[in-house]
This record gives sequence, C-alpha cells and structure tokens, in this order.
Amino acid sequence: MDIDINCDMGESFGAYTLGMDEAVIRLISSANIACGFHAGDPQVMRKTVQLALKHGVALGAHPGFPDLPGFGRRRMDCSLEEIQDYITYQVGALQAFCRAEGGRLHHVKLHGALYNMAAADPAMVRTIARTIHALDPELSLVILAGPKAEILRAAAAEEGVQVIPEAFPDRAYEGDGSLRSRHHPGAVIHDAALAAERALAMVQHGMVEAHGGSKVVMQVRSLCVHGDNPNTVALATAIREGLEAAGVKIVAA
Amino acid sequence: MDIDINCDMGESFGAYTLGMDEAVIRLISSANIACGFHAGDPQVMRKTVQLALKHGVALGAHPGFPDLPGFGRRRMDCSLEEIQDYITYQVGALQAFCRAEGGRLHHVKLHGALYNMAAADPAMVRTIARTIHALDPELSLVILAGPKAEILRAAAAEEGVQVIPEAFPDRAYEGDGSLRSRHHPGAVIHDAALAAERALAMVQHGMVEAHGGSKVVMQVRSLCVHGDNPNTVALATAIREGLEAAGVKIVAA
Amino acid sequence: MDIDINCDMGESFGAYTLGMDEAVIRLISSANIACGFHAGDPQVMRKTVQLALKHGVALGAHPGFPDLPGFGRRRMDCSLEEIQDYITYQVGALQAFCRAEGGRLHHVKLHGALYNMAAADPAMVRTIARTIHALDPELSLVILAGPKAEILRAAAAEEGVQVIPEAFPDRAYEGDGSLRSRHHPGAVIHDAALAAERALAMVQHGMVEAHGGSKVVMQVRSLCVHGDNPNTVALATAIREGLEAAGVKIVAA
Amino acid sequence: MDIDINCDMGESFGAYTLGMDEAVIRLISSANIACGFHAGDPQVMRKTVQLALKHGVALGAHPGFPDLPGFGRRRMDCSLEEIQDYITYQVGALQAFCRAEGGRLHHVKLHGALYNMAAADPAMVRTIARTIHALDPELSLVILAGPKAEILRAAAAEEGVQVIPEAFPDRAYEGDGSLRSRHHPGAVIHDAALAAERALAMVQHGMVEAHGGSKVVMQVRSLCVHGDNPNTVALATAIREGLEAAGVKIVAA
Repeated sequence: MDIDINCDMGESFGAYTLGMDEAVIRLISSANIACGFHAGDPQVMRKTVQLALKHGVALGAHPGFPDLPGFGRRRMDCSLEEIQDYITYQVGALQAFCRAEGGRLHHVKLHGALYNMAAADPAMVRTIARTIHALDPELSLVILAGPKAEILRAAAAEEGVQVIPEAFPDRAYEGDGSLRSRHHPGAVIHDAALAAERALAMVQHGMVEAHGGSKVVMQVRSLCVHGDNPNTVALATAIREGLEAAGVKIVAA
Repeated sequence: MDIDINCDMGESFGAYTLGMDEAVIRLISSANIACGFHAGDPQVMRKTVQLALKHGVALGAHPGFPDLPGFGRRRMDCSLEEIQDYITYQVGALQAFCRAEGGRLHHVKLHGALYNMAAADPAMVRTIARTIHALDPELSLVILAGPKAEILRAAAAEEGVQVIPEAFPDRAYEGDGSLRSRHHPGAVIHDAALAAERALAMVQHGMVEAHGGSKVVMQVRSLCVHGDNPNTVALATAIREGLEAAGVKIVAA
Repeated sequence: MDIDINCDMGESFGAYTLGMDEAVIRLISSANIACGFHAGDPQVMRKTVQLALKHGVALGAHPGFPDLPGFGRRRMDCSLEEIQDYITYQVGALQAFCRAEGGRLHHVKLHGALYNMAAADPAMVRTIARTIHALDPELSLVILAGPKAEILRAAAAEEGVQVIPEAFPDRAYEGDGSLRSRHHPGAVIHDAALAAERALAMVQHGMVEAHGGSKVVMQVRSLCVHGDNPNTVALATAIREGLEAAGVKIVAA
Repeated sequence: MDIDINCDMGESFGAYTLGMDEAVIRLISSANIACGFHAGDPQVMRKTVQLALKHGVALGAHPGFPDLPGFGRRRMDCSLEEIQDYITYQVGALQAFCRAEGGRLHHVKLHGALYNMAAADPAMVRTIARTIHALDPELSLVILAGPKAEILRAAAAEEGVQVIPEAFPDRAYEGDGSLRSRHHPGAVIHDAALAAERALAMVQHGMVEAHGGSKVVMQVRSLCVHGDNPNTVALATAIREGLEAAGVKIVAA
C-alpha cells in the first residue's frame, strides 16, 4: 500500500519568509508551489523547484487569485474565462522554471478561495481541467476527497484529466465530508498522535471520523500536511512516521 | 530580398486599452507580446496570441521590469539573477498561452529600460540568452542593429541563441548607431514618406543617415514599427507598402 | 432650484489614459477622483485635483477594492475591518493631494463592486460613514437615490455623516429603484435628448420612469454623468444644457 | 542630555510577518511606519499606529519606492515629480491613520534606495522637504548624520523643514562618514556591548570610530536600531540600557 503526502510550498515573497520549506521537503512526496499571484515570486519559484528536484519530490503548481494582500483567501467574483487565463498564466510560469531546472510539472492544486469555490462547482472544475490539459495532457488535478469527490472527478475526466483526491489528517471534518470551518473550535487538530492515527485510518480504511462521531468514507490518494511552523512540521513528521511504521510507502500520486 | 516587420502588442491592461493591435497586425510579420509585468494581463495575452495566430504572425515575448505604473521604462537596479527569473516567469507564462492556442513562441524582445540596459551590457545579454535557451533552444533574441550589435550577437551565440538585429525607421539615430534620445527634438520621425525611405535604405543598403549627416552601417533582419495611434499606423502602412513596391517580401525573421 | 452633477475622474494609470477629464470637467460641479486601488496613480491624482480646483469643482474621493486588473468591478470577500482600512488609506492619500494643492476634500463616493455591495448593506454603510467621519467630520457620502436610500441615509446619520443621493439620467431603472443590470438590453440610454429629459424629471419632479412604465420616486441631490468617450460627453452636455435652460443651477451638493 | 531612538516598523504585509514590533516598541521613542509601497498594508498601518500611540512613541512615515518584491531596496530611475507624488500619497495615507486614531504624524524617514539616493542628492532632499511641508509644516525629516549632513540640512531648511540627523550604532562607518557597505565584512556590528559603547560615543562625544581607525564627527539627534530578529532586539536593549545607565534620557526628537 502506498500514499502521496503533499504540502504547499514556495509561499515566501521578496523579503518575506513563510513556511519551513527546507524542513518539510524531507517529509513529503509532492510540493504545491505558489506561482506569484497569492504568494511566491520568480526567485522563490526557482529555488523551490530546485529544492523539490534535489529531494525527488513531485512538482506541483499552486495557482490562486491575484490577491497578494489577501493571500488568495478572499473570494473574488471572477468569470470562468478570467479564472482560465489566470491558471494558464501561473501554471505556464511554473512550468518554465521546471523546464529550466530539468524537471516537469506533475500536478496542479488550486489555492485558498479558488480551491474552495471549485470544490463546490463542477463547471469550474471542468474549465480548469480543460485549461491545464491544454498545457500538458499528463497533468493531474488535486481535489478534496470524500462524498463530493466523484462529481468533481467526473467533471475533470470529461476533459481527459485525472484527479488526485486528498485528505487532511490535521483538520476536523463535518458529517457531509466537508472540512469543518476554521471559525469553529476544534477545526484544527494539534495533537500529533491523533493526526497520525487519522492519517492511517484515511489510508488503510478509506474513512475518517467526523465531528459528531459519524464516519466519512473517502478514497484518498494523497494526504495534505502543513509546514507553517515547528508544530505543523512535528505533525507532518508524526504522520509520515506513523504511515511508514504501518508499512505504508510514501510516493507521489 | 526579405525582411521582418515587428511591433509591440498586447499592451492593454484590464479596463485600459493601449495600441491599435487589430489594425497593425495586418502590417507586420512578428508580434512582441507584453507579459504582464510592464503591461498586458492574462486575458490580453490570450487574445493577442489568438490574433497573431489568426494572421499568421510570429509569436514573440516582450518581457519587462515589474513596474506597471512606470510601464517598464524606468531603470531598476536588479541583479542578473533577478532579471533571469523575471524573464523565465514572463516568457514561460506567454509560452503557455501559445501552447494552449496551438502555437509556439518564436522570439523574445526585451521591453523599455530592460532593452536599453541590455543593449549596453553583453554580460546581461549572455545571461538572458542562457535563460531563454533553457526554455526553448529555438528561441531568438531581438537586439538593436548597428555598430554595437556584433558584441551582443557574440554574447548570445556563446549560449547558443541567434539574434535578430532590428532597426527603427521612425527614429533618428546618432552617429554611433544609438537611437537619438526622445528628449531631443527630431528624435521621432512623423513623415510617413521619409520613414518609408529610411526603411528601404536600411533593408537594401544596410545603412541609415544619422543626425548630423553621417552614415550608420547596420545589418538588419527586422524593422520595428509602432501602433500607438492612427499616425504610427499610417507610418507602418507606408513602410510596408514602400518595401513591397520595391520587391521586398515581408516575412518573420 | 439647484442640483449637483458628479462624474468619476482621474481613472488613468501610468501610460494608460481613461476618460475625457479635460472635457467633462467643464460640465460638472463634483469630481470623484480615483485613489490608486482600482484606478488612478499618484501623478494622476495630483493632476486631477489641480484640474478640479482650477475649474471650481468640488473634490471627491472615489475609493475601490484593491483590484487594478478588475478595475474594482469584481466583488471581493473582504471583512468590514479590511474595507475600513482600505478606505482610510485611499481617502487619506487623496486628502494629502488636496491639502498640498490648497483644497479640501468634500465628499466620498465608493466605486464599482464596493458601491454595489454598500448599496445593499446598511451595516457596511455605517462602518464606512464612521471611517470617513474620523478623517474629516465635514465629508459627505454619495449614495444611490430611490426607495432604498432612506435606510442608508439613516445608517450614515448614526455616525454623523450626511449623504448625497444621486441618480443616473443615462441608465434605465427597475421598478424597485435599482439600476437595470448592464446585462439587459436598454440598460444604458444613448439618446442625449432622452437623458436630458430624464435628468429634468429627476430634479424637478423627484421621479423617473422605470423599465416597464412604473414611476420611481427619489430625492435627488446629484446627477451622475460619464466621460468615457465622446458620446457620453455629448450626453453630459445635453443634460447640463437641458437643466440650465429650465432654470436649474448647477452647484456642488 | 537626551536622545531619540528610532526603528522601522509596520513592515509586515498580508499573511507575512516581518519584525518584532511588539518587543522593540518598548525600547524606542520614534517609529518609522511603512506606508504600503515597499512594505506594510492598510491593516498593518492602523495596528502599528495604535501600537505606537499606546506606548507613547512618536509617529513617523517611512515611504519607499513602489517595489514590494524588492522591498524598496532597488534604485528606480524615477523623476523628482514622481518621487514627490509617491511621498505625498504614502505620507497622506499614514496621516489618515494617525488622525483616525487620535494622533499626529511627527516625522518622515525615507526607506531603502530612496534614503540612499536622497543622502547624495540635496536637490532631491529639497523637493522632498517641500513635499512634506505642504502636508504639515511641523513635520521633520530624518537624515544621515555626519560630515554630509550639513548640506542636506540646508536644503531642507530652504523649504522650512527641520532635519533629525541619525546615526547607526550597529553599523560600521567609512572615514568619510558614510555607512560601510553591507557587501563588506564587518559592515554590521553583532556585539551588543560594542554597539552600546558606540551609541554612547555618538551621543556624548558626537563621534564614532570609522573602519580603519579614524574618527567621524557627527551631530546626532537620533539613533537608529533594528527589530528584525531576537539578536537585533538584544542589541537595541543593550543600547538603550547603556544610554540610560549613563544618564541619557530617551525622548523623541
């Protein structure tokens, strides 16, 4: 049995450092690299591509809304055509750094508000799938695993794009398979042992216990971890070690 | 005998329109498309690539400094590494639009202050040549024709990149082959017949009369025209018609 | 009887020109000057303040979302605190240009998506009123006249801010007093005589005929005109001349 | 005997945190607050003004070039008119936050490349002095103390603006009174005791030992400290404690 571990990376910008990329790169198999709209800049993009290649980690693009002050977390009322062009621009820019450094882009994961909007909008997912397929037909699209994943998978498949359903071992879930809002207490799991246990249940049993006690069934090909601070790196370490101790192999999806 | 005619295009941005792209595209063989740093945005980039493909015009990238308020015309004290990464980002983004629309990027022409700084700095040209060669070894680099072109050509050649020396039929030259500064009277030629005559001299005799009366010798593979307003489009029309009347064929370099 | 005529101005940016400010300034009594977020830049702001002062036109701030590529027309999911700080920043910057040029800011009119969101959200209007009152207690706030204006007026009044209800002679109205969406045919009136007639009805009778034939009652202190192109300037001219011929005096609100 | 201690603050942006503002505010008497061009954003500006007011620290504006990716450290070839308008915009925006929070702006200190360019250009200093005097005739301008300060002081005085000459206890000096370039070893002093000793010599004796052993004479009204990391905060603490132990009082200039 094997599983991918992905993490958002390359979110530093100019004089600003964000994320412990050097530490977390050793724990993951896929890097989602910011592309300069919500975070990241050309220097950071090149260095992050080099870092991922050095550690044999799969290269992913992490495009977002053109909203650096809001870190791409604010919904923007963009047309599908605008979203398509923003993704072509950002993914294309990152592909260039991959090419220049001797690598090849492997997947795309939307960031922030764009990820959340697409998770509820199969028409948007289909537009995005068509957009990235035109850039490289081998690119996969990371989506939220769970009950709603099938409709998104089908939308992407219509454009010839495979999806990678991902789960969040350090986040609480609602009974319907959505992530519990960060506005609610308990939305984020800080206990490394619990996160590792949930990761194992996701991978081995395809399920997670939701807030309230019900079970959410999910087909998972990747687990998302975070590298914002020493605590999240500790969680990621516990998740990886727990999986490996159970005989699960960590490989890109 | 044949010659390329190039023009900067795709410099509109959001609600702002700049340039008469629909008119000028019919007169040229190469389009230099802005990439979002000094001008242009993802929507404009896609539409301009579509326009160039529809008219059989060669696709070029026109990267500049990250200075939208200054339109890339202000020198910025960037390191060679920063310049390299800015070019990878912008050229890569435009390559993606070309790929998505079924075309392929053909050349790169630097914009504004970046063009001027490179014209005086063979080390910068060499860095830029290495940068674009890593993105596509077939890409050419447009440079200023004239006495100083040979050293830039040699710098690019060391990295395996061919140059396209260009001349400006609607600009006055100094005796040393540099463009006469726009701060001086007579820097820009507004007389369509005169511009057409100079274009023909550049192409047929490889020379132009400089301010003061001396002759500047230049090997020219492309002529740069402008499409900012009805007058510059009229000049471009006269230049093209004059060349064709003399039996010169207009084709991409 | 007198009325204010207002127009958005100073929406040029860097190398980009938008709007016929020199022509329209002669027709209006209030200028709403862009503040650099959705449009405008520091050079344009100073020049537009100078232009308004020269023509004795009241100085207004026209703040918008931080979305230059979308011209502030796209809704952004910002918190009230973010909106408050964006307005303080933009209005403060424009106040500085007014002060430097010997003038004083007179009113604030929100731009684009921010205007539309506030028109449906008295809590947002109250926050905005409190924000501008803290900068200068004499500042007024321009709002959409009509049946919904009273609740917005009351919200602003709670923070000590007076409103200026405005109507649009060149726009069609729905029966509920909202502007007819630009997605529908007939949303914009291109007939100068008709626009002038509607302007007069708005001022003299406090009403306008809505799409479908019903009457919308409105208390109007200002009429909004546009200066995007020769046609809208012609409309504004007809509106002003029609009002003056009927003995209405054009003065700032 | 008394002296001001100033520090750059409010350089965080969106999701990015920079500087230990909460720690350093307790050690200083003047805050130079970033204004959104090279760093800072409207939320950060308001919070930093609130923080300074709470601790009784004088409010200063810290305007820079419009270059967020370069943190305002790269020279840009702007005209004096552009620089004037950039300063009016940024200082005006910060004045608005000061006014809204019940404070008043006290001084202006240029940032990064703009500071360095002005230090060598009395004509630029005079333009800047005229610019800030038009916003508030009580505003002072912080300049580099030392042999070259007199000519800058005179330039500002012609426009009615007082200067505050500052020295850097944690930086090495050249014999001509300029700061030793960060490209050279020993440019930054990391030894807290040495920095404290140099601070005392600057304040009590109006001089500092330059690289090479010569003495630089300077009239100092403020000392600049840094709050980037725990080490620089430790240095600032040592400097303050050393001054207070010697009977020097820390008050805004």
